[in-house]
Amino acid sequence: MSLVIVGSLAFDTIETPCARRERIVGGSGTYCALAASFYTRPKIVGVVGTDFPKETLDFFRRKKIDLRGLEVRPGRTFFWAGRYEADPNCRTTVCTELNVFQDFRPKLPASYRRADIIFLANIDPDLQDDILNQAARPRLVAMDTIQLWIETKREALLRVLDRVDVFFCNDQEAKMLTGEVNLVRAGRKILDRGPKWAVLKKGEHGVLVLGRGRAFGLPGNPTEEVVDPTGAGDCFAGGFLGSLDRAGRFTEGAIRRATVHGSVMASFAIEDFGIERFKTLTPTQVEERYRCFKKLVAF
Amino acid sequence: MSLVIVGSLAFDTIETPCARRERIVGGSGTYCALAASFYTRPKIVGVVGTDFPKETLDFFRRKKIDLRGLEVRPGRTFFWAGRYEADPNCRTTVCTELNVFQDFRPKLPASYRRADIIFLANIDPDLQDDILNQAARPRLVAMDTIQLWIETKREALLRVLDRVDVFFCNDQEAKMLTGEVNLVRAGRKILDRGPKWAVLKKGEHGVLVLGRGRAFGLPGNPTEEVVDPTGAGDCFAGGFLGSLDRAGRFTEGAIRRATVHGSVMASFAIEDFGIERFKTLTPTQVEERYRCFKKLVAF
Repeated sequence: MSLVIVGSLAFDTIETPCARRERIVGGSGTYCALAASFYTRPKIVGVVGTDFPKETLDFFRRKKIDLRGLEVRPGRTFFWAGRYEADPNCRTTVCTELNVFQDFRPKLPASYRRADIIFLANIDPDLQDDILNQAARPRLVAMDTIQLWIETKREALLRVLDRVDVFFCNDQEAKMLTGEVNLVRAGRKILDRGPKWAVLKKGEHGVLVLGRGRAFGLPGNPTEEVVDPTGAGDCFAGGFLGSLDRAGRFTEGAIRRATVHGSVMASFAIEDFGIERFKTLTPTQVEERYRCFKKLVAF
Repeated sequence: MSLVIVGSLAFDTIETPCARRERIVGGSGTYCALAASFYTRPKIVGVVGTDFPKETLDFFRRKKIDLRGLEVRPGRTFFWAGRYEADPNCRTTVCTELNVFQDFRPKLPASYRRADIIFLANIDPDLQDDILNQAARPRLVAMDTIQLWIETKREALLRVLDRVDVFFCNDQEAKMLTGEVNLVRAGRKILDRGPKWAVLKKGEHGVLVLGRGRAFGLPGNPTEEVVDPTGAGDCFAGGFLGSLDRAGRFTEGAIRRATVHGSVMASFAIEDFGIERFKTLTPTQVEERYRCFKKLVAF
């Protein structure tokens, strides 16, 4: 199997109530690929400027991430600055500079076109749609989105939604997209648009996964400290899809286990700023955290 | 084993975005005892006025609820009126009339004093403390509280907290009581005060149960419609403690299963106004819902 991830690579400036980090490496594609790399050898599609650190690209290579779909363009890498409140679910975007992302048109290299799984991380839905037009019959298509696209490109987003098997979003986004105040009804409405699975992320409260006549719920990892919530959702998708790619099947059981792997990777991501935690994370720690989730819900 | 529940019996006027019910039977003791009656024969301590419906008392008796601790006093029963927003976690108290509850001093009848489990449902912490002074070495003491007592009788509440084994509260109350923004840290601080278990209820997001070095998480039942959230927390306590009373032990495994039984009863309570759902609920439906929770979290 193979997994292609289309998303952003970025510099982030992050402010939490306790600390601040300037221009550290981030982006939905970055987080997702690193998380997925613990399960499979993900292929990344994205763009960076010439200012993107060589050490990070080397780190990606050591993690066996396929970079043939990564364009390096003259100019500066996409930049985002955000601030978190004491409640890590509350964040404000302070600044966004598209830079080389401005006129980026993602291209699937020939070696990516026959990917089994394609993940459209949070980018403009028109670009997501364009990627699907380049792919040759993927076995599973997944997408993520954010409030910005629900508000500004709703129709384009709904068009992509029709074409995907797994839709990731957080609870607020699901309610906003569907106009429902009840999350379960919101999820059902999303399924009515086409996806087989709606993966509704709820931050510290865990995740609810709905399929037709099916429901899987998992609480969040009970953590005492969230250092930096940035990228948790992307790492969730990375663990989820990476583990599916490794499993080679998309049965309900595989989806349930993928949800746990997603939660495992998200729970690690928030333990340090940016991608720091992935620099020391070991497969043994990943397996151990999976067992913690098993124990957390056992009765 | 035996379970004594000390709480309120009331008339409630409830307004939701969809409907309104005038002066229906409610109260923390009522809800808790009815939920517990599906597992054991709870003994209730409380007070009602002469206006309390004979049919409800007959219903309690049919449910094998021991009413020897229930005082009937001249005057009117405690009355509460509240309004819910579209988000069922948001409620406003419109009116409270203490009536016969005003100068109620709960008394444990002789036949209740040797109870194995005592539950101090949401009432004034001074009354909760007083009840414990009347009890002869219960094997397990549990308490619930609400924001009102955290704000107005904090010291008295903390004194009771020192004396209980299981503390029920919702996530907002735990944070308010401890001054922590992180729920896990709030729960740990509660455990530092004495309780063996902090049962942190999160409404639609389920429940997190913390013990020393132990954690159990359960998502909420994925329901598409909450008709009336009133009493969900009390029914949770009733299912939790009723099932413990039936099990006859307080091991970690029993606490985990009790948490599921609590969630089962809370999930039924919200399906109709007031105590209506319990009039038709069958033991088979209770077992079936327990299996649904098992399936919900299986991986």
